[in-house]
Amino acid sequence: MNLWFTEVQTKNVMLSLATENLLHIEKTDYQELAVIEHKDLGRVLFLDSVIQTSTRDEFVYHEMISHVPMNTHPHPRRVLVVGGGDGGTVREIVKHPTVEKVVLAEIDERVVWAAREYLPEISAALGDPRVEIRIGDGNVLVRENENAFDLIIVDSTDPVGPGEVLFSRDFYGAVSRALKEDGLFVAQTESPFYNEDLIRRVQQDLSAIFPVTRLYLAAIPTYPGGLWSFSLGSKKHDPLDLDERDFRHCATRYYSPAVHLAAFALPPFVRQIIGV
Amino acid sequence: MNLWFTEVQTKNVMLSLATENLLHIEKTDYQELAVIEHKDLGRVLFLDSVIQTSTRDEFVYHEMISHVPMNTHPHPRRVLVVGGGDGGTVREIVKHPTVEKVVLAEIDERVVWAAREYLPEISAALGDPRVEIRIGDGNVLVRENENAFDLIIVDSTDPVGPGEVLFSRDFYGAVSRALKEDGLFVAQTESPFYNEDLIRRVQQDLSAIFPVTRLYLAAIPTYPGGLWSFSLGSKKHDPLDLDERDFRHCATRYYSPAVHLAAFALPPFVRQIIGV
Repeated sequence: MNLWFTEVQTKNVMLSLATENLLHIEKTDYQELAVIEHKDLGRVLFLDSVIQTSTRDEFVYHEMISHVPMNTHPHPRRVLVVGGGDGGTVREIVKHPTVEKVVLAEIDERVVWAAREYLPEISAALGDPRVEIRIGDGNVLVRENENAFDLIIVDSTDPVGPGEVLFSRDFYGAVSRALKEDGLFVAQTESPFYNEDLIRRVQQDLSAIFPVTRLYLAAIPTYPGGLWSFSLGSKKHDPLDLDERDFRHCATRYYSPAVHLAAFALPPFVRQIIGV
Repeated sequence: MNLWFTEVQTKNVMLSLATENLLHIEKTDYQELAVIEHKDLGRVLFLDSVIQTSTRDEFVYHEMISHVPMNTHPHPRRVLVVGGGDGGTVREIVKHPTVEKVVLAEIDERVVWAAREYLPEISAALGDPRVEIRIGDGNVLVRENENAFDLIIVDSTDPVGPGEVLFSRDFYGAVSRALKEDGLFVAQTESPFYNEDLIRRVQQDLSAIFPVTRLYLAAIPTYPGGLWSFSLGSKKHDPLDLDERDFRHCATRYYSPAVHLAAFALPPFVRQIIGV
């Protein structure tokens, strides 16, 4: 099959993937959804022609968005994931025995369907009895809750289209109200090479709301620029105030206690972006 | 100008860069050399259609291949750089006031010419009086020296074509002989996502020769997979046995004492590659 999927990363950079097999493509109510098979990357999920996840490297993103905040909280019981319909983040969260409930708020039910159909390794935990899938607007769900969650993770698409509202200061205020008094929040916040302004703004907005605001990094091969950032806001617990005995050991391939701490060692050019 | 440069990263992954301006292209005695201007990445140097460096992100690679070993050695005076004709590694080395002499062994004089002509920020230190440029085979030069250098850096292309011999165990033996009794060696060793076998083999070869063998990582946006590895072999000094007071502070944008240590915090999947 001589079919190439091209992600237009910027107007001047394109990443093209040879398609072994086009497993699925459809226009959902929210976006164009496609799943392809790729020789090096395994199965790859695209939304609006942007790579969301590949079975080859998804472990990096899903482990780092989950285990860093999960280990920062001493006993995370109730977790809300906004976005993340592929189930990869949920899969990592339920590895922690403290967890009693995970609510997954995904706006596009076709993403959940496609993950169940084509990405079984990623979506494996969506059937876990502790997991409740709510198809709907995560922004609305957050506003309906007060003092309800130990951890809220925004596992969203880029800040355009359906994901845009999830990067606003007003939304972060609602997140803070939906969290318990020692709760914390994490969101993926794009590349420090290509999205400096976004990272700066999110960090500023979070620090106006949360006593503890941090930025951490991970290397994700299939995302533009390779280096990816996560922004964390916390009412009480600091991800840097941890020692080895605080970590709950889960089976992971990228995350470890040493990687947790190393992820916060920001290069000077990243410190400069956020003014620390 | 509607001209795209495409790097074939694997048979199934292509990265394409829109060319604002094609500054230079030629077939040298060793390889095809091209320099383009790119809107996001600045000036980009290609050898045989593989991205070598861009003015936007070159600081990551050049700082990490240089300052990690330079700070590991307590008083690096004589340094040999094999490859690295663009001058970026040399530029970082001469930031250290301990340095008395840097020999740059570049096989292709056209690379040095192109860097001087088109990449002045990168090649800036090639005129430093401590720098001696030797156009020739680094493999031969290493074998002509004994007990001569505190640090040898292999800043090579991928392990195909002119760069291949620089990844052999026999070469590492010659490197060891060319080093002083407390000398050390660093080489770029590709991506842990795409080049597992190479990394494993180099680490095994180095550990047969050097008492201290380490692997460290950095995030380099324009290299395939984003996450890049460096292999270090040392006769005496360990890059992990450093505390804050050992670092010589230089003006850097990616490297810092915290980043130095964090670079050795290997994710479990990388530890598995090298069996540590």
